[in-house]
Parts: sequence; C-alpha cells; structure tokens
Amino acid sequence: MPTPLALAVDFGGTKVEAALVDVEGRVVPGTRHRRPTGPTATTDDLDAAVAEVVGATRASLPDDAELAGLGAGVAGPIDVATGRVSPLNVPAWRGHPLRDRLVDLVPGVPVVLRIDGLCIALAEHWVGAAAGTRGENLMGMVVSTGVGGGLVIGGRAVASPTGNGGHIGHIEVGGFDDRCSCGGRGCLEAIASGPRTVAWARTQGFTGTTGEDLARAHAAGDPVALAAVERSGTAIGQAIASATNLLDLDLVAIGGGFSRVSPALFDHARAAVAERTGFAFATRVEIVPSGLSDEGPLIGAAALVHRPELVV
Amino acid sequence: MPTPLALAVDFGGTKVEAALVDVEGRVVPGTRHRRPTGPTATTDDLDAAVAEVVGATRASLPDDAELAGLGAGVAGPIDVATGRVSPLNVPAWRGHPLRDRLVDLVPGVPVVLRIDGLCIALAEHWVGAAAGTRGENLMGMVVSTGVGGGLVIGGRAVASPTGNGGHIGHIEVGGFDDRCSCGGRGCLEAIASGPRTVAWARTQGFTGTTGEDLARAHAAGDPVALAAVERSGTAIGQAIASATNLLDLDLVAIGGGFSRVSPALFDHARAAVAERTGFAFATRVEIVPSGLSDEGPLIGAAALVHRPELVV
Repeated sequence: MPTPLALAVDFGGTKVEAALVDVEGRVVPGTRHRRPTGPTATTDDLDAAVAEVVGATRASLPDDAELAGLGAGVAGPIDVATGRVSPLNVPAWRGHPLRDRLVDLVPGVPVVLRIDGLCIALAEHWVGAAAGTRGENLMGMVVSTGVGGGLVIGGRAVASPTGNGGHIGHIEVGGFDDRCSCGGRGCLEAIASGPRTVAWARTQGFTGTTGEDLARAHAAGDPVALAAVERSGTAIGQAIASATNLLDLDLVAIGGGFSRVSPALFDHARAAVAERTGFAFATRVEIVPSGLSDEGPLIGAAALVHRPELVV
Repeated sequence: MPTPLALAVDFGGTKVEAALVDVEGRVVPGTRHRRPTGPTATTDDLDAAVAEVVGATRASLPDDAELAGLGAGVAGPIDVATGRVSPLNVPAWRGHPLRDRLVDLVPGVPVVLRIDGLCIALAEHWVGAAAGTRGENLMGMVVSTGVGGGLVIGGRAVASPTGNGGHIGHIEVGGFDDRCSCGGRGCLEAIASGPRTVAWARTQGFTGTTGEDLARAHAAGDPVALAAVERSGTAIGQAIASATNLLDLDLVAIGGGFSRVSPALFDHARAAVAERTGFAFATRVEIVPSGLSDEGPLIGAAALVHRPELVV
C-alpha cells in the first residue's frame, strides 16, 4: 500500500510555504518549498507563488506514496463556505477564490482550507504542547507581527460558522485604551504584538527598532525593555484570563517570533492570570511555549487531511 | 405509554425553584415551586429548601406521566466531575455535594447538574431566541445582579472541563479600569450589572437606588440615566465584540432583570459592536432580547434530561 501523505500549504502575510506531511505529523525532508508574498505583490504574483510551491512539493512526492489530500491554512479573514480569502496584510486578495485555485492545481485530490490560527491550535493538539493528556480545551496563540490564535474545545478544533473563530488578538484588555485597527479599544494585538511592544518601548526612550533588539536589551537588564516585556506579558495574561473565564481552558500554548523575546513574557502572563481571576477553574489554566517548531502551521494544515475528526 | 417529564431545578443566589417540564420545553402548569435561598441561609436551610421544592414538584407528577430524569442548573462555580457546588452568592455552600443530595431525593432517577449559564444558553437554543434557524454559535447572557452566560458552539452547549465555561461577566472591557471582585480590571460585571450601573449613576448625581428607578428615569429622559444606560450598553457591546472575535458567534440573546432597563441598552451594545470591530464575520452577530420568560432556567435544566445530545 502506498504511504498516504498530505500536501500542506501555509499562506501568510510574508510567505507561502508547502510541504508533504505524513500521518504522524512529520514533515517529509526535502519536500518543503517557500515563496515570498507581502503587501506589494499583485494577485497574479500571489497565484503564481502558490502554484510554484504546490507544484514543487507535489513533484517531490515519493514513488511509494500517494497524495491523501491538500490542506491549507490561510491568514484571515476567510469565508469557509466559499473558500474565498481576504488576508488582512495581503491587500491584493479581497475575496480571492483561493480554494478554487488550489482545486485546479491538484485535480481529483480533496482540498480543505481553514484559517491559519485553527491550524496552529490543531497542530498543538495533535503533536505539540497539548498532545497526549494535557486537556481537551486549549488555545493556540501566535504572538508575532500580529496576535492570532485558534481554539480546541472538547477535543476538537472549532472551525466556526464563517471559519474565523480564534481572534484572541481582538479581545479587549481592561485598563488599556489604545485604538486598534479593527476599531476596538485596547485590543490585545494593539498592545502586545512585537511591533506595538517595540513602539511603546520607543516612547519610553528605547532606541532599538526590532523585537530582536528588545530581546537583547531585556537580556542585558535594560529597564525600559524589562517594563515593555512586563506590559505586554501582563496584557497577554489579561486576555487569557478573559478567554478562560469564558471557555474554561486547560492549556494555552504560545508561539510566534515575539513570544521568544524572553521567558519573562510567560511569567508576566501567568502572574496576570493568577492575580486577575478569583475562580479556581480559571487560574488552573497552564500557559506554556508552543510545542511546535516553525513547521507548526504546515503540520496543522496536514491535520485537516489526516485527522478530519479533530475538527468540529 | 406514560408521558416523560423532567424534574427541573434552578438554584440561585436568591431562590431555588423546581417544576416539571415536557419534551417540548413547556413547564407543566401547577408544578412550579419556589423557596428563598440568600446569603444568610445555613447549609441545612438550603438543603431543606431544595428538598421541599423537589418533593412538592415530584408530588405533582400526573398519574399518566413518568419522571425521565432530574436536571439542575446551579449558580457557579461548580465542579462537574464531583457534582459539588460553591455558588458565589451563597457562602454557606462551598464544595457542597448538591448532586449527591439530589440523587438521594429521587432514587433511581438519572440526575444531571450543570451551571445555570449553560442551562440558559441551552434553553435559548432549544426553544428561545435561537430556536430554529438562527445559527449554531450563540451566547446566552443574563444581565441582572451579576452578568453571566453560557455558550452553544457548533449547535451544542459547551459543558467545558470543570463545568464553568461561559463567564462573560469576567471578560475585561477596554478603556475601563474598575476593579472586579474576581481580581480583574474592567470586567464586564464590574461595569454593567444592575447594581454597578446604578452605583455609577449615583456618582453622577442620580438619587434612585434600584434598576427600576433607573428604568423610570431613563424613560423620562433624565440625562444621567441616559448616560448610565449608554455606558453599560456600550460595555456589553465591547464584551460581545471580544467574544465574537474569539468565537464567531451568530447570535447573542440577553435576558435578566436589568436587560429590560430600556431597549436603548441593546442599541448601545449593537453600536459598540459595529464600531469596535472591522471584521465582517464579527459585526454580523445579532444581539437580541432573550426569547425566554422567567421559566428559561428551568427549561434549560429540563433540556439536560430531554435533549442530552445538545450538550458537548
């Protein structure tokens, strides 16, 4: 019998990637391909980039394997009913029929498209921080250029009616008033994303410009960097407290580039949850680093193919 | 065949009620019984009150009916694994084995105990504002002495690991800094409950003392009452915006005494959602008054018996 492999696609604001993934959630070495996307790409550029990574990955299918399906995780918002996507940071695509394009690229192969946050939550549940016995209610979070995520409730990823559930970055945070691009006040993303944290630090005299600069300054004990990481970590904890008051979460797994600015980010988040909710069911939530490498989104996209029973 | 009826129990901070409910979600006339609870009752008083309403309701079982089960909705927090309850406003009960007590009262009859917010969401989904075709993802909310609620996700009420999901009153609200009894800052309950709204109005010169006073002043066009209802309605909308960004809700149904202070409360909530989120998937959420009378919690408790497939 041929080995069933999923063709996993991860489409985001800076790049599109594809790879083959096996039924254990392992990326097959040598099958991962990448192209840039970005805010200045035209819709034709983007379609070409997707076709190139899908074609290259498909061409690397071993002779003793078969394509079980194509699973795609895409930056939101999306419309799961029509398969059209409108990634916030990719202005050329508004209502772009990405699922139809993917179907055309792999005729006869089942195609499933979901938001990237759902794929991340699914990957944490399948092979990441929540694999095994760490609970049935969990949130996967990404703290990076933006703040996003996805939910697993009762052991299954929540696809949600339009496909857009999991926007933890747009939970408002008490005591903050910063206007968010979504129109909210004090949304988590407007406070705790990498760029927003750096921007706040600069208002306090920090002279670096990147999350990496802030990480180095934090490691060196710079007081402004310490304060910036505390402020963002606390806000992350406040948003998690709100989410777990609502959802009775077992676990929150946080990945993304800026989540690695310092382990102190996690300590501040945990302290905020402990302080900010008097409910034992809420303070029990574990906050841990993602158990996934940068292959996480691809693995989650592959889970859409290999483990459809894990999605509501 | 005898008619299957559920013995529904609703236990809260001011009263405990029981009634028989049929498979269509109708309370059987003449079977509803009530006793006070309250913060000064002893644990024996409370056990006696529960025994009395359950006994009186059971005694009203018609000859041609049979008891299909007992369903109980209880003010939280609860521990669904052990059936122990610790209602916040009933200090005599901390870890009280209510489910065991109920089992003793109706030997041989199945007993299911869940948090009251879940019962309310379930009742809205079964026979209330969300009955029929108004969506699979909904939140039932109660705005009264406190602010609580429950969730239906993918067509099923979310029981959650400890049984305590749905605490929308402890979602933080951007731009507010009020300390909440749970330890949070700007929790919705600390802003928009009936007593907190009246307390804020009094800081602005309002001389009434109850939600009813505020409703009358609002109807008469009193500027402070208008501002107080706008402030609380806006906060409710902000919390709903956060919740629907996270959960992609179709519908929020709001009941509870203070929700009837004025239809303007709903208008302000809707305006806040429209203003505070730029995502079409989030602004589509409908915010409507509860479709349930004051029988709602009993009907939801009965659904635990008659419609167990509606609970995850």
